[in-house]
Amino acid sequence: MNTRIEQMHTFFDPKAVAVIGASRRTMKAGHVIFKNFVINKRRSLFKANLYPVNPNEKSILGFPCYPSVTEIDEEVDLVVIVVPAKIVPKVMQEAAAKRVKAAVIISAGFSEVGNHELEEEVTAIAKDAGVRVLGPNCLGVYDSKTGVDMLFLPETKTLTTGDEVVATPRPMAGPIAVVTQSGAFGAAALDYLSGKEMGVSKFVSFGNKADVTSSEMLSYLLYDDRTRVILFYAESIDNGREFMEVAKEVTRKKPIVALKVGKTEAGARAAASHTGSIAGTDRIYTSAFNQVGVLRARDFEDFFDMGKALAFQPPATGKNVAIITDAGGPGIMAVDECVSLGLNVERFADETVEKFEELKREGKIPRFATNLNPVDLTGSVTSEMFERGTRILFEDPEIDGIIVLGLHHLPALDEDFVDRVAELRRGYTKPVVACDVGETEMALHIRSRFDKLGIPSYFSPEDAARGMAALVNYGLYLKKCGQFNQYMESFLERSKVA
Amino acid sequence: MNTRIEQMHTFFDPKAVAVIGASRRTMKAGHVIFKNFVINKRRSLFKANLYPVNPNEKSILGFPCYPSVTEIDEEVDLVVIVVPAKIVPKVMQEAAAKRVKAAVIISAGFSEVGNHELEEEVTAIAKDAGVRVLGPNCLGVYDSKTGVDMLFLPETKTLTTGDEVVATPRPMAGPIAVVTQSGAFGAAALDYLSGKEMGVSKFVSFGNKADVTSSEMLSYLLYDDRTRVILFYAESIDNGREFMEVAKEVTRKKPIVALKVGKTEAGARAAASHTGSIAGTDRIYTSAFNQVGVLRARDFEDFFDMGKALAFQPPATGKNVAIITDAGGPGIMAVDECVSLGLNVERFADETVEKFEELKREGKIPRFATNLNPVDLTGSVTSEMFERGTRILFEDPEIDGIIVLGLHHLPALDEDFVDRVAELRRGYTKPVVACDVGETEMALHIRSRFDKLGIPSYFSPEDAARGMAALVNYGLYLKKCGQFNQYMESFLERSKVA
Repeated sequence: MNTRIEQMHTFFDPKAVAVIGASRRTMKAGHVIFKNFVINKRRSLFKANLYPVNPNEKSILGFPCYPSVTEIDEEVDLVVIVVPAKIVPKVMQEAAAKRVKAAVIISAGFSEVGNHELEEEVTAIAKDAGVRVLGPNCLGVYDSKTGVDMLFLPETKTLTTGDEVVATPRPMAGPIAVVTQSGAFGAAALDYLSGKEMGVSKFVSFGNKADVTSSEMLSYLLYDDRTRVILFYAESIDNGREFMEVAKEVTRKKPIVALKVGKTEAGARAAASHTGSIAGTDRIYTSAFNQVGVLRARDFEDFFDMGKALAFQPPATGKNVAIITDAGGPGIMAVDECVSLGLNVERFADETVEKFEELKREGKIPRFATNLNPVDLTGSVTSEMFERGTRILFEDPEIDGIIVLGLHHLPALDEDFVDRVAELRRGYTKPVVACDVGETEMALHIRSRFDKLGIPSYFSPEDAARGMAALVNYGLYLKKCGQFNQYMESFLERSKVA
Repeated sequence: MNTRIEQMHTFFDPKAVAVIGASRRTMKAGHVIFKNFVINKRRSLFKANLYPVNPNEKSILGFPCYPSVTEIDEEVDLVVIVVPAKIVPKVMQEAAAKRVKAAVIISAGFSEVGNHELEEEVTAIAKDAGVRVLGPNCLGVYDSKTGVDMLFLPETKTLTTGDEVVATPRPMAGPIAVVTQSGAFGAAALDYLSGKEMGVSKFVSFGNKADVTSSEMLSYLLYDDRTRVILFYAESIDNGREFMEVAKEVTRKKPIVALKVGKTEAGARAAASHTGSIAGTDRIYTSAFNQVGVLRARDFEDFFDMGKALAFQPPATGKNVAIITDAGGPGIMAVDECVSLGLNVERFADETVEKFEELKREGKIPRFATNLNPVDLTGSVTSEMFERGTRILFEDPEIDGIIVLGLHHLPALDEDFVDRVAELRRGYTKPVVACDVGETEMALHIRSRFDKLGIPSYFSPEDAARGMAALVNYGLYLKKCGQFNQYMESFLERSKVA
């Protein structure tokens, strides 16, 4: 890790933070951000020193306020800047004088609205002083472990009825890092991840990328032990060669899922007007991603579906997928999607078929269960049948991954089939994903139970297939570059610790 | 409507129902089904006469029990058969003797497990007596208005913790009919529709289609006033010519969305082993659907997304879509998906651009808002801005449909933008769909509010684009066959009543 990358650690784990533009007015971003830090300090989550900077206030939320960062006696390594754009150069000069290591410029009003000179001025000051800069025009950083939280979007909102509701939640701690160019996308992602109970290690919103680039951020995250998978949202990638080099290095050790938007001409036009950058030809992105092992998501949902699979399951050693279900129709839907994604759903080996036939003869699965792949346990399914059937699939060395479609609606199926299936994984490294369809209590319970036991669950058969495809594609890439065994070892090691 | 189709009305709105195989044992399907009717009778939802038939019981749930349907003195027009397969011929003979009009055979154990002769025997008896038969091997019928409910899947289940949770809910009443070949898919659909608060008019699960075919069911639903859109799940379609003729007639008046699975070779193999039918070549289905105006869904989610759009919004007169958003990134995602689905997202006409410029000059939308399509109102968005911007899009005659991406996270946006946008529709017939991203209270509130006001809302920008694509494709089909104006008139008429 080079020094400039190492320095980025300050964004996430500073020793002392000054919020420049901290405010007492509750509607101001400078208030919300400062208060985030204060709350996390009270909860003992945020342990670093904290200073509000605002020449017009004596104290904010009980913290003595400083007219300038230079007036703070103690060391400050990170500044969060939330002042009007035109004052940012002055504030950056003071931060440079204070010898801070890193600065996050939340403020908008720079190159995204044509003020390129102002942005260059600020960047030059920072560069001369060796200050790393995130932004401007960004949401900044959220770190679930250190309590750094610069999100200025209101955590709750009050409806016209007077009811207060959660509007922008913070996800729980977990293995997924989110790196996003768009702040609005970032807010939406946080909301989605919270609701889906998917945990986040670090969240970074870039904005104009005046200094720190997405490539540098990927590079940094390679060394972050709490991050198992990187979700990367981009509208443009500026330095293609740098990105390729970094991505290649990262994906050998950690999966990157990319949602690159602006795929179509009209979309690229919108992207250009949105961030001031020109989106490249889409096919070039796809081919570049393939080359360096970056997994490309098809859409918003796919992005998170893939991330969830890669965060919790090992990669697959091949393309052969087995599907076990209690619901014929959804089983076919999973097959269709698997095949259209390039996976194989083939008839099982004779030995495996014979094992199922034996279960039938013994009356342990229904006589009319099908065992051609998918295995359809039929409406008479029980938890024991799911356990017995799935065990056979684990035992078959030709099967590289298993999709368990356990629709809870069938009368004799108890929810403990989830625990039984999860238990079977001991001693095997082949990936498993699950699906239950529905939005009511039982479906939510089944999916949540699967998730808690480390088996990523999905609400549709096709989504489960997409999760499995990510595990297969990543596995094939790792094999191609000779990194499969090393990744698997470190995956299993981390799983033991977790 | 011919007599055989008319007769099918008895499945949904009988005068007197006998449940043959009604049981006192709570785990039996014959108990669950009979109890459904009893409960709906107590609620005064089910108004017809009800008779349990079981030679071994005197009474069930307070209803006097009959040894055979022939022993019932009063007229019976519908029988629900829940006895072992081998007894079904005898029971069907009795039903024929009783001169019932319709029979639903819930029981499994027929052609789906190779017992073709038994199925033919039963069908022959029914045919001779002019009895219409649904099934065998099916979930039967659920009608939200008449209280006919044959779903034998337990409405609640008890977890190992002892907690009772909802497992197979019944959706509320609404404009969507669900016709499904797979019972398991049907149960999953009911669960999904309930959770998403999407209302159902009628639900029919077919099973083996020994008599009533899916084409006949579509034909019947054409005349059902409470059904605005038909969601049709199929693994195979037996009589292609009949289907084409019927579908062509139906889609001129009512949209059909089809989820035809078994798309790939492996999927078709699974379909064949599941229902005993051979799935046809997939491309033939796609082209046949196109020809007769059936809209084909890509996957589980798309199926319901399209249905939701068509149930609540009028079709579009052309392909030109306008997108208005407060979130640049998600705006681009919507553009990408629209374009990849064949819709146009073009620069607005000069007059429209000028209207936005005027709003900027007046300080009514942010100076840096973009108005090239998408309209990006930026993070400074307010409800007034959404109202003003969307009004301009309604006024532009070149715009055929509007996608409103209102991400609630932005600080100054109140939830009343939903009501303001909905209000604007008065006087216009162009379709609108909406999206808010997230899973927390505020997001659920925004989407639910949109839905209640008749604007279908989606949880991702791409889903919203898919909803709009359904409205565009259906509109183009209606125009092609000269039915657009008639459909629009009847759509508006029904909307007034609703």
